[in-house]
Amino acid sequence: MKPGFSLSYYVDGVLSGNRVVLGQAITLVESFLPKDQENAGAVLEKILPDTGKSIRVGVTGVPGVGKSTFIEALGLYVVRQEKKIAVLSIDPSSPLTKGSILGDKTRMEELSKNPNAFIRPTASGLAIGGVANHTREAMLLCEAAGFDVIFVETVGVGQSEVSVKKMVDFFLLLMLAGAGDELQGIKKGIMEMADAIAITKADGDNIKKASEAQADYQHALHLFSTPDSGWKPKVLTTSALSGDGIDKIWKVIQQYRDQTEKSGYFDQNRSDQNIAWFHDCFDQLVRADLSQHQSVRSNLISLEEEIRQSKLSARSAAQQLLDRYHQAIQKP
Amino acid sequence: MKPGFSLSYYVDGVLSGNRVVLGQAITLVESFLPKDQENAGAVLEKILPDTGKSIRVGVTGVPGVGKSTFIEALGLYVVRQEKKIAVLSIDPSSPLTKGSILGDKTRMEELSKNPNAFIRPTASGLAIGGVANHTREAMLLCEAAGFDVIFVETVGVGQSEVSVKKMVDFFLLLMLAGAGDELQGIKKGIMEMADAIAITKADGDNIKKASEAQADYQHALHLFSTPDSGWKPKVLTTSALSGDGIDKIWKVIQQYRDQTEKSGYFDQNRSDQNIAWFHDCFDQLVRADLSQHQSVRSNLISLEEEIRQSKLSARSAAQQLLDRYHQAIQKP
Repeated sequence: MKPGFSLSYYVDGVLSGNRVVLGQAITLVESFLPKDQENAGAVLEKILPDTGKSIRVGVTGVPGVGKSTFIEALGLYVVRQEKKIAVLSIDPSSPLTKGSILGDKTRMEELSKNPNAFIRPTASGLAIGGVANHTREAMLLCEAAGFDVIFVETVGVGQSEVSVKKMVDFFLLLMLAGAGDELQGIKKGIMEMADAIAITKADGDNIKKASEAQADYQHALHLFSTPDSGWKPKVLTTSALSGDGIDKIWKVIQQYRDQTEKSGYFDQNRSDQNIAWFHDCFDQLVRADLSQHQSVRSNLISLEEEIRQSKLSARSAAQQLLDRYHQAIQKP
Repeated sequence: MKPGFSLSYYVDGVLSGNRVVLGQAITLVESFLPKDQENAGAVLEKILPDTGKSIRVGVTGVPGVGKSTFIEALGLYVVRQEKKIAVLSIDPSSPLTKGSILGDKTRMEELSKNPNAFIRPTASGLAIGGVANHTREAMLLCEAAGFDVIFVETVGVGQSEVSVKKMVDFFLLLMLAGAGDELQGIKKGIMEMADAIAITKADGDNIKKASEAQADYQHALHLFSTPDSGWKPKVLTTSALSGDGIDKIWKVIQQYRDQTEKSGYFDQNRSDQNIAWFHDCFDQLVRADLSQHQSVRSNLISLEEEIRQSKLSARSAAQQLLDRYHQAIQKP
């Protein structure tokens, strides 16, 4: 352990719900330094028995859909039900300015002051897979710190939604009514991952349009088969301004939990997610391991170039890369 | 090279368009025997410069949608345009009875007799990824043998569609009108992968229903953003019985090719597919390599069990597996 790191400081702090230590622990798991990673692994191992008790909710939607105000409204509602909530935000658009979206201090102002709420951006870091792992681990730390509901927020325009879907129990997609489909920039597959779609800003003149959009999306969802969960995705309308529909969304999440816990899907899904995560971690470790060997790294680049020029088949290239990798491990 | 294997026999046979040798070469790439795999790699390397000149079309749809009759009708139409076509079928439902769907001799009867058509089932084999690689390689062999259009056919109810999408230029989804959405069993994401949807059996009393379904699906597709190809997916109606719409579908495929070749997407997509395929191959090789070491294989099983019981984090498990793998490579 590096000087200054104390396993019990992190573990005891997190388990007692100390928000400062929780924040430090999340910083630790986000670190790419090998020593930090090792320490983070030790902390996670210790808190593991105290994880898994929350409901994990993914929330996505394009910029402008009103994600922050929605999460603030829903978050405040849930906090009033005597629950502790954590909001983990992923901002894939700002890999360099760590957590830039939270630079905006007015974001979730009321919620962020609430003692039962914890809001934290996740650095986008290097790879999407990497981000997902950091967020997953941040989620575990929040659970160990006693949070009952974890919201994982993404921007809804990129690949990160798929990663988030793989780590949450319930996936909520926010949509605007009548914004024009192209404007909404819904990427392939995102709509189909949703356990619920909420049409936001359903207030004032917008109410009628929101109801129409609700019918439209309900129809579109109806075209797809029932997902493995056995849950039929719901479409709702909501307004963070008037508060309309916020309670219904929370009720739908509760219904989902009840139904899938009863069917056994809830636990099965988490178990499957963990196994898939393990394999993802392993693939990432191998990839990181490859690039640690100079000879393998340069081999990879030249193989990709040969493939692009149709000089080499994928099969042969993969075999050559594996051979080179073996050599590097045998003679470091 | 094993006795009986001659590189030039396979290469010359395939390049001259000899259908018997083409069939044997596909059997070779499908083999899981290490020696066969090595030989298959050598054959593929040799024919690589002669690949890539076809248009690759994925065709999917649930059983009962009339896939065979549709492909036969479209195939015969294309053959009449002086083109040579190959149909590669993937049947994930029959991993053991290799190519069971072709056991039905009446399937594509007319097309199968046509000298300019080549029909071949792909054994489902072990893993979906594996199937995809075999089919990819079979596709390359067909291209080297001079086929202008390759249809890759899947059953449309499983994971294999995603693999097929990754290897074709154009992805066509067949749907029935008014069969009830649930009955159609369209899996998540498949509809959104489609470059075109064809409503089949649009004849007789069914014509009106087919037109309604066409409008419905056009509307549903409209809800999604334009894919990276810049191509707006089309919805068509067709009848293998009357032949209506078959020519339009072929025209749409041509339009797609023209538009994406002009934009540069066509070549870029193929190049990206090849790189992704290379990485898939490598991941598969590593996985196969893991299971070749008894110590690693048993380690993997016990790690998964510990994860399921929440005794171990994914991160630690992955690190332990990598350590064990390194040991196995260093001391074989």
